Amino acid sequence: MIEKTLIEKLLNNDRRSVARAISIVEKNDSESAELLKNIYPNVGKAYRIGITGPPGAGKSTITNQLAKLFIKEKKTVGIIAVDPTSPFTGGALLGDRIRMSDIGQRNDVFIRSMATRGSLGGLSKKAVDAADVLDAAGYEMIILETVGVGQSELDIAQAADTTMVVLVPESGDSVQAMKAGLMEIADFFVLNKSDRPGAQQAVTAIKTILSMRGQDDPGIQGWSTEIIQSIASENEGIIEIKNEINWHKNYLLKTGKFSANRVKRMKVRIKDIVEEKLRSELWSEARENSLNLSLEKIAAGRQGLSPYHIAEEILENFKEHI
Amino acid sequence: MIEKTLIEKLLNNDRRSVARAISIVEKNDSESAELLKNIYPNVGKAYRIGITGPPGAGKSTITNQLAKLFIKEKKTVGIIAVDPTSPFTGGALLGDRIRMSDIGQRNDVFIRSMATRGSLGGLSKKAVDAADVLDAAGYEMIILETVGVGQSELDIAQAADTTMVVLVPESGDSVQAMKAGLMEIADFFVLNKSDRPGAQQAVTAIKTILSMRGQDDPGIQGWSTEIIQSIASENEGIIEIKNEINWHKNYLLKTGKFSANRVKRMKVRIKDIVEEKLRSELWSEARENSLNLSLEKIAAGRQGLSPYHIAEEILENFKEHI
Repeated sequence: MIEKTLIEKLLNNDRRSVARAISIVEKNDSESAELLKNIYPNVGKAYRIGITGPPGAGKSTITNQLAKLFIKEKKTVGIIAVDPTSPFTGGALLGDRIRMSDIGQRNDVFIRSMATRGSLGGLSKKAVDAADVLDAAGYEMIILETVGVGQSELDIAQAADTTMVVLVPESGDSVQAMKAGLMEIADFFVLNKSDRPGAQQAVTAIKTILSMRGQDDPGIQGWSTEIIQSIASENEGIIEIKNEINWHKNYLLKTGKFSANRVKRMKVRIKDIVEEKLRSELWSEARENSLNLSLEKIAAGRQGLSPYHIAEEILENFKEHI
Repeated sequence: MIEKTLIEKLLNNDRRSVARAISIVEKNDSESAELLKNIYPNVGKAYRIGITGPPGAGKSTITNQLAKLFIKEKKTVGIIAVDPTSPFTGGALLGDRIRMSDIGQRNDVFIRSMATRGSLGGLSKKAVDAADVLDAAGYEMIILETVGVGQSELDIAQAADTTMVVLVPESGDSVQAMKAGLMEIADFFVLNKSDRPGAQQAVTAIKTILSMRGQDDPGIQGWSTEIIQSIASENEGIIEIKNEINWHKNYLLKTGKFSANRVKRMKVRIKDIVEEKLRSELWSEARENSLNLSLEKIAAGRQGLSPYHIAEEILENFKEHI
């Protein structure tokens, strides 16, 4: 049961309540669902920016510098840094780097880092929920930062209004292989550490890959995916990044894609809610136990039991008891 | 409807039927489910090896050399190379590299590369299904090779009896950040390209991280996670890799973990089957349409409709009609 005062304080941007609310969504249980339901009417005002890319590309530095620009414009900033490292090596690196920086103590900035506990997929969902909390608490610009390692950045990109992919000259060759998924989610690219050797070749490589992207892709019609060169550690290129975000926002608004994307996102969320509820009803303790029993029989060499038969039995049982 | 002759031919290791069957599981529809159900009694004899690691670590070369050793022992080899690059940059690199090699044309080797079409998560499930096809077709050693980018290698590791993580001296620093998930799935490590500078430091770094892994972790009790140094391009260290696989297999058999792991895997699979069936019944065309209609109302600014209300309506409707 969520206390009403927590919601009230959260909506009034009480920092401790915001922190507590994020801890609640991190657990992702029934309390989390109740909280999200309660704050929902206040979610949707913030602009969400996704920042992703390989480790060491300088995402945290860019986040930091970009946040400073927003602060100068008198905007409040919420930052969620998603770090898909596991508990066993110690957890969230990204957010800590920003928290220790000069914006970490400001009242108009809220920083939270989230590390993997359990599965990756779950983490990005929780990060998006945490962004909803910051949104409801009134933060105007929300930055979702994540290391690009597979599924998580796709989820983050889907949750962001504008997504930038940060690369460095050294990522040139991996661009073609592993990071292909990143190519598709980028509204624009940032080539950070652009003073390093190979920067021009990297820009050319990205351009080549981009040119292979069909111009008839409805997702990018009327939008040209730019490559911004930056040296974030020296604050070079950050204004250009901010401008590109603004241009992309205007493009989204002008074409109606801004609200279309948000409706799409809501569809994904509704499906998630329905499926999660159904799943939790499905895997009751009794049904888990019965599954374990069937598995023991299989382990003991009982013939004639296949996973398919067991699955059908469980499904039948569920339908009978619904 | 799967023709009976396809199954028969597949079980007799007819190459064209094996290829067709894998194409069927790649589609992951009702035909795929039927096929898997039919071959299930013949699945489980093969030993499954997972190979994962960052791009450029030499996974394909190791796969290739290892396969040659198995062939020398008169074992048949099935290889599934999972490449999480997207269609838009061209697809499966890993498998093609092996297919073009000297083992690619042999009758006792079957190689299939699978690239992302849609979501990453789905890809690794299909790869595991494809491994089942190869298993049923009688391939004795199955190698599942995947680029380590997040969720996919966890799925692959869960499906493999023995998983090795391939690193190179240059991956030293990323070891600590991004690859933390890889640390947990490794039954042993291969430091490939060990003639390069920094090899010794990399070994030390991996050892340090491994020492942080609690010895009370029941998953690794009685097993010491080794680091094998190799230069796969010169065929150095491959016999050592093969020996380590054998040792791990013996360890699994001796401790009863071999069958325990397979039962665990079956549990995951059963849950997947149940949830997928339920999901497909849930998202009927009618219910999809009704969801889209609700979303249109929200987009038109209709107040009082939240994703939570819509989700509840859908769930109620589903329960009534089940």
